[in-house]
Amino acid sequence: MADSRFFSASAPISIGDLAALTGASVSGESDKTRLFSDVAPLDRADSSHVSFLDNTKYLTDFSASKAGACFVREKFATRAPAGMILLVTEEPYYAYALAAQYFYPREAFTPAISPAAHIAKTASIGAGCRIDSGAVIGEHVKLGKGCWIGANTVISDGVEIGDDSRIGALCSISHAIIGGRAFFHRGVHIGQDGFGFAPGRGGVTKVPQLGRVMIGDDVEIGSNSCIDRGAGPDTVIGSGTKIDNLVQIGHNVQIGRFVFVVAQTGIAGSTHIGDGAMLGGQSGFAGHLSIGAGAKIAAQAGVMADVPAGASYGGAPAQPIKDWHRQTVAITNLVKKRHVNE
Amino acid sequence: MADSRFFSASAPISIGDLAALTGASVSGESDKTRLFSDVAPLDRADSSHVSFLDNTKYLTDFSASKAGACFVREKFATRAPAGMILLVTEEPYYAYALAAQYFYPREAFTPAISPAAHIAKTASIGAGCRIDSGAVIGEHVKLGKGCWIGANTVISDGVEIGDDSRIGALCSISHAIIGGRAFFHRGVHIGQDGFGFAPGRGGVTKVPQLGRVMIGDDVEIGSNSCIDRGAGPDTVIGSGTKIDNLVQIGHNVQIGRFVFVVAQTGIAGSTHIGDGAMLGGQSGFAGHLSIGAGAKIAAQAGVMADVPAGASYGGAPAQPIKDWHRQTVAITNLVKKRHVNE
Amino acid sequence: MADSRFFSASAPISIGDLAALTGASVSGESDKTRLFSDVAPLDRADSSHVSFLDNTKYLTDFSASKAGACFVREKFATRAPAGMILLVTEEPYYAYALAAQYFYPREAFTPAISPAAHIAKTASIGAGCRIDSGAVIGEHVKLGKGCWIGANTVISDGVEIGDDSRIGALCSISHAIIGGRAFFHRGVHIGQDGFGFAPGRGGVTKVPQLGRVMIGDDVEIGSNSCIDRGAGPDTVIGSGTKIDNLVQIGHNVQIGRFVFVVAQTGIAGSTHIGDGAMLGGQSGFAGHLSIGAGAKIAAQAGVMADVPAGASYGGAPAQPIKDWHRQTVAITNLVKKRHVNE
Repeated sequence: MADSRFFSASAPISIGDLAALTGASVSGESDKTRLFSDVAPLDRADSSHVSFLDNTKYLTDFSASKAGACFVREKFATRAPAGMILLVTEEPYYAYALAAQYFYPREAFTPAISPAAHIAKTASIGAGCRIDSGAVIGEHVKLGKGCWIGANTVISDGVEIGDDSRIGALCSISHAIIGGRAFFHRGVHIGQDGFGFAPGRGGVTKVPQLGRVMIGDDVEIGSNSCIDRGAGPDTVIGSGTKIDNLVQIGHNVQIGRFVFVVAQTGIAGSTHIGDGAMLGGQSGFAGHLSIGAGAKIAAQAGVMADVPAGASYGGAPAQPIKDWHRQTVAITNLVKKRHVNE
Repeated sequence: MADSRFFSASAPISIGDLAALTGASVSGESDKTRLFSDVAPLDRADSSHVSFLDNTKYLTDFSASKAGACFVREKFATRAPAGMILLVTEEPYYAYALAAQYFYPREAFTPAISPAAHIAKTASIGAGCRIDSGAVIGEHVKLGKGCWIGANTVISDGVEIGDDSRIGALCSISHAIIGGRAFFHRGVHIGQDGFGFAPGRGGVTKVPQLGRVMIGDDVEIGSNSCIDRGAGPDTVIGSGTKIDNLVQIGHNVQIGRFVFVVAQTGIAGSTHIGDGAMLGGQSGFAGHLSIGAGAKIAAQAGVMADVPAGASYGGAPAQPIKDWHRQTVAITNLVKKRHVNE
Repeated sequence: MADSRFFSASAPISIGDLAALTGASVSGESDKTRLFSDVAPLDRADSSHVSFLDNTKYLTDFSASKAGACFVREKFATRAPAGMILLVTEEPYYAYALAAQYFYPREAFTPAISPAAHIAKTASIGAGCRIDSGAVIGEHVKLGKGCWIGANTVISDGVEIGDDSRIGALCSISHAIIGGRAFFHRGVHIGQDGFGFAPGRGGVTKVPQLGRVMIGDDVEIGSNSCIDRGAGPDTVIGSGTKIDNLVQIGHNVQIGRFVFVVAQTGIAGSTHIGDGAMLGGQSGFAGHLSIGAGAKIAAQAGVMADVPAGASYGGAPAQPIKDWHRQTVAITNLVKKRHVNE
């Protein structure tokens, strides 16, 4: 289903193998050797495609879908169109992701160092790397095995990047030690000075930014996101953390493992985010805060104080999300009452 | 008036021709053959310049202006200084734009492929293109006629771009089909993976992003804006739509025709924006929403539910703008009352 | 203490000289000739390091620190661990900054024009410049003495940049006149078209953007920030102003001297910001406003009206910060009361 100008699918796979791969159960008496050639959205799939239903907003699309098979929760099975093979699972989106990964594994590449890349003699480049044209690799840089550095990306002196990492086009990285399997999109800037100025007699003076950016394994960073280096302590991003586009991470911020940071979020200096926290889009965090592990922060929240582990917060100033919802209702009622009284 | 280091003006034009070009009426007995050489702001114009008054905040500047002529609504004519020729129109800003376009048409360029650009042999480059140094054009890319690709911009394999498009410096484009007369500024990133992860047993897994970015004709995109490709469906931007700087557009978003998206707005995955909608700066949209045609969303609004066609919404959570204004007043009064009672 | 892969420290300095340099007083009977070799954070410093205590959140770290010396306010002196030399000052962060500047002065560079840079013949390059690979310098560009232009940065025709300026990698600058000692980080885009469209019969038309960007001396601009050129007037940034990452500055905006603009702030067209104002992170400003000198705007504020000089504003719509805090409390109480009544 995916456009062959941009994607190429693996060989077809039987529905039985797909079920085994994803942990789903094939419904009824279906022929488990039947082959499927691709994944596709409900409204565009045909009989050779596997689709999924995860959000009830798409139940109508599900009932009208021509997909040959579909990952679906058991409770929606009765809504399926006739003839559709059901791949029953309580995690349809997760199972779909595994199926899609089968058809479209991570893009392979041919190792090659572009003659138009600029690589310092003291840089150490692991086996099997690809470095595209216009890329700049500074002195004493260490790239692990199997890395891909995109076109026109600039890696400054001393930076270390672990095995199997992919740095997109037009990124810059300095003052950073990065783990394996990094996946940075385009226009990511890591390691620049934090925004550090000290007021005093004689005006404001710049505070030298003397820390680094330490990034764990399996970290994904979205396009045009910025991570400033530490001012003295390091800025730290834990393994498994995923950061969306246009995110700002200030100096000395410490983000734990498996944190999700949605687009356009900003985290001011020295704030700590616990493992597994989820930060909604456009949320903002004041400096020097502690956000507990597993906290969930709503989109656009303005977080001005510590958040306990596991708590859900929203609003600005951010507060427990139930309180925020109650206040929204109370304010609505306030106006309604006033209108009644007028 | 414009700095000749950066701009060069067309030949002078008579006030009569300018009136004809813009649909304005020349006031009184003015000499319609009098030549004007440039446009300029009210406070910097001299007698050879044409200016405009559109915002009443600048009425004082208007009355004190030395501009030789000025586009103005009839009702403000009496506020004009002596000797100023009035170009009367109910659309002074629009008329000014047409006049400015006469003096400063779209920047011309000389077709040339820089020897320092990197162009794949299978790429198809239309007649009359300019491709600047450091630009990378991938395999099977198709560029229409008269395109300008800025320095160090990276166009990945298979991308198609229509005639007379201009892609600024330091952009990246992948997985995208783009119409004619595109005008992308600098640092625009189009086609990277959406932020798609599926939670399940064994943690969170990445969902392959298998869609494209489909962009119509006459689309303008501001600097450092990001448009993720679809997850399965495509991300779609309709013809005539204008997007400002630092905007985030998530996977599967569909934006209609002639939509305006002001700077730093973020639209989460799978939300649809109807034709002619106007999205204020720093506004945010949750995923899977439907925003009706012609809706007007205030700056910083946090839109968490569908918005009907033609409606004006503001606040967070966003609501009809009159309700939001009432609530703002009610909250202000609430505090005032409490103070009286204290 | 700083990682020698990225930083190299100046020679050790005696505590007496450090006190003289920073204006601090050495406590008690300390040996003023004792040498110190570096600065470090409280929790990582050892006996050869100088640290600082500025935020009371770190008092516990202070009392447990192994730092040999520490900048501290007199009132916290009693909390110091035994053996620590105190550098007493009412401006510990400022004094620390001066000490850190001694150990880590601005990074020196060797003048060199990369053979892989693309420099127009009519460009004028001052003595002692460094221009990195892939950089593009347009026709009639004027670079002052001692400038450093980062890799793959694009400076368009006619731009002028003053002495001792540093433009990071992957920036673009057009239609701009920039003062001395500029310090732009990476991915900064300056001088693109403002977002100017005029509605009228026959739809919306683009308004030619005919102004420039005028930037004073000693201006710092963070990564991925965008400054649009003026529409007719210029966009102006005053000397000494510091702008953080991912900031959007619209056409015709005028920012005064020594203004601080924190990350992800957006300022719409034609708004003026007075000298010494401080704009919190993610704050937003409507167009055509006047923000007085020394105003303090809280993070995430939505400023829709003029702000008087010296005022502190917060909230959305922004208002005097005390009123905003009162309203926050009133809303909280409103919900509490309703719960009591239920």
